[in-house]
Amino acid sequence: MKTIAVDAMGGDNAPQAIVEGVNQALGEFTDIEIKLYGHEEKIKKYLKASDRVSIVHTEVKIDSDDEPVKSIRQKKNASMVLGAQAVKDSQADAVISAGNTGALLAAGLFVVGRIKGIDRPALLSTIPTIDGGNFVMLDLGANAENTAQHLHQYGILGSFYSEAVQGITKPRVGLLNNGTESTKGDPLRKEVYDLLSKEPAINFIGNIEARELLNGIADVVVTDGFTGNAVLKTIEGTGLSILSALKSAIKNGGKKAKLGAFFLKDSLYSMREIMDYSSAGGAVLIGLQAPVVKCHGSSDATSVYYTIKQVRTMLENKVVDKIVDEFSKEDH
Amino acid sequence: MKTIAVDAMGGDNAPQAIVEGVNQALGEFTDIEIKLYGHEEKIKKYLKASDRVSIVHTEVKIDSDDEPVKSIRQKKNASMVLGAQAVKDSQADAVISAGNTGALLAAGLFVVGRIKGIDRPALLSTIPTIDGGNFVMLDLGANAENTAQHLHQYGILGSFYSEAVQGITKPRVGLLNNGTESTKGDPLRKEVYDLLSKEPAINFIGNIEARELLNGIADVVVTDGFTGNAVLKTIEGTGLSILSALKSAIKNGGKKAKLGAFFLKDSLYSMREIMDYSSAGGAVLIGLQAPVVKCHGSSDATSVYYTIKQVRTMLENKVVDKIVDEFSKEDH
Repeated sequence: MKTIAVDAMGGDNAPQAIVEGVNQALGEFTDIEIKLYGHEEKIKKYLKASDRVSIVHTEVKIDSDDEPVKSIRQKKNASMVLGAQAVKDSQADAVISAGNTGALLAAGLFVVGRIKGIDRPALLSTIPTIDGGNFVMLDLGANAENTAQHLHQYGILGSFYSEAVQGITKPRVGLLNNGTESTKGDPLRKEVYDLLSKEPAINFIGNIEARELLNGIADVVVTDGFTGNAVLKTIEGTGLSILSALKSAIKNGGKKAKLGAFFLKDSLYSMREIMDYSSAGGAVLIGLQAPVVKCHGSSDATSVYYTIKQVRTMLENKVVDKIVDEFSKEDH
Repeated sequence: MKTIAVDAMGGDNAPQAIVEGVNQALGEFTDIEIKLYGHEEKIKKYLKASDRVSIVHTEVKIDSDDEPVKSIRQKKNASMVLGAQAVKDSQADAVISAGNTGALLAAGLFVVGRIKGIDRPALLSTIPTIDGGNFVMLDLGANAENTAQHLHQYGILGSFYSEAVQGITKPRVGLLNNGTESTKGDPLRKEVYDLLSKEPAINFIGNIEARELLNGIADVVVTDGFTGNAVLKTIEGTGLSILSALKSAIKNGGKKAKLGAFFLKDSLYSMREIMDYSSAGGAVLIGLQAPVVKCHGSSDATSVYYTIKQVRTMLENKVVDKIVDEFSKEDH
């Protein structure tokens, strides 16, 4: 039985979406236990009875505009911080929150703690590709600046995650660069290329370009936190903009266009499903001593359910233990 | 009368697409003269007679896999290099090529030359937004690495370009960053924020995020060459991937979906038009003593025509002279 701590108060739709996602996960997975942190009365309004769920009551929570490090130090009884503390105290095996990303990163770093040998944990997300597959990418912005050594570690962290959670054998690890040739990039990229080429623990396939990302060119994409953040936000922004352009093209296209949209409805839905992030789970702060996972702030119950499923897989396949082993035996 | 040097041999569809674009531009604009550089016989096959066009014959050309700096030094009679040399020798006012980007950057730097005071010229493109407008962004990859001083200059270069060519008064200049607050980013971004805030020559609106780019959040987007390259390629890749997903959703959706697509055809076309890059012109290597402009390698006659139109506007509105003035009077 694995215990997952869940911050019931984080995100735009808390606590309802969080608790409903928990209900669904508890129904589906009989080998997990959930500890919910937050306002007991508000949680109970949505919670289905189960002997595998408990509530730790607190009225303190971290707000979305709280200063991350300060807030986790000052609001020690906030639902998110209590969840992280439970992991630290071995009362839980992992923690999930849809709240303030910066604060969760800080709670991960300062409360849960890094794996020995890991310099700077990274944010890792699973991004769907256009053929229905997906890839993982890191760092997506846990760090504003990274060294070559960090990116070298991200290659290993991403590869272990992909193998353990996505079930991919010898995941193809690519370095995001401004061209595919081995000599491309700024001095940082050149140094990382060299380190990853010599790394026996991974299957490094060389440089990849941003244009190819959604075609499934790699299973693991390594980049620095600044670029990763910009690229992820560009994918999201471009996707949303095109869908909104499609909507207004239909709206302004008169009766004929509306009729077309009606007939196309099922196909458009199936496309939206491919591009749907919610089944991809949350963003993992990887490199910590336990899974610390961020759900999108606007998560609905389904995304919360998928994030719990993702954390359960991480625990079942012992991805943290494997990373600990790797970084204890070698000098990364 | 302004004279534009055009490399007739660069790009996937040369010389046909290049020459046909020239024909169209000469028909439309009676105040320009074109010098075509390349294989006379092959050019003549497509060229409409005009007293404002001449051919400078050469059988040498730079190939797409030629090493940029080496090739422009060794192939001094290549069509692209002769075009740049004509600008240097005041035989032409600007040069356009759809060939090897790296070689054109090198020809721009080493043959045409920088404006005094500009440290590192940047690649600038016009990118359409979803509401039918557009913005300019720089650097898109002329440099693999940039300093704060470079990005400070890009704010000014972009603003002058936007004002002169797009006709925007006080263009809104934004710094691409990992958050909108003034304290966001890596040390480079923080330093640039400070420099741009104090710059009287521009209308700096602060940090912007990649998610908002296609919503027209700014008229000028300043970033380093590595990030700019990644973001531009992500926009292109995401757009293409979504359109291809839409296509296969329709293809796999059976008769109903095909009927829907038929009715929606006009609306989908109008959307494609909004997202069409060809009318946006070419990528300008800005900061040089004359316009040096790169057409996309796969340019058709229409994109070539629009690039000539863009260069004509740059010349008419004296954007280079204005930049020279600005950088001679102030210590940027």
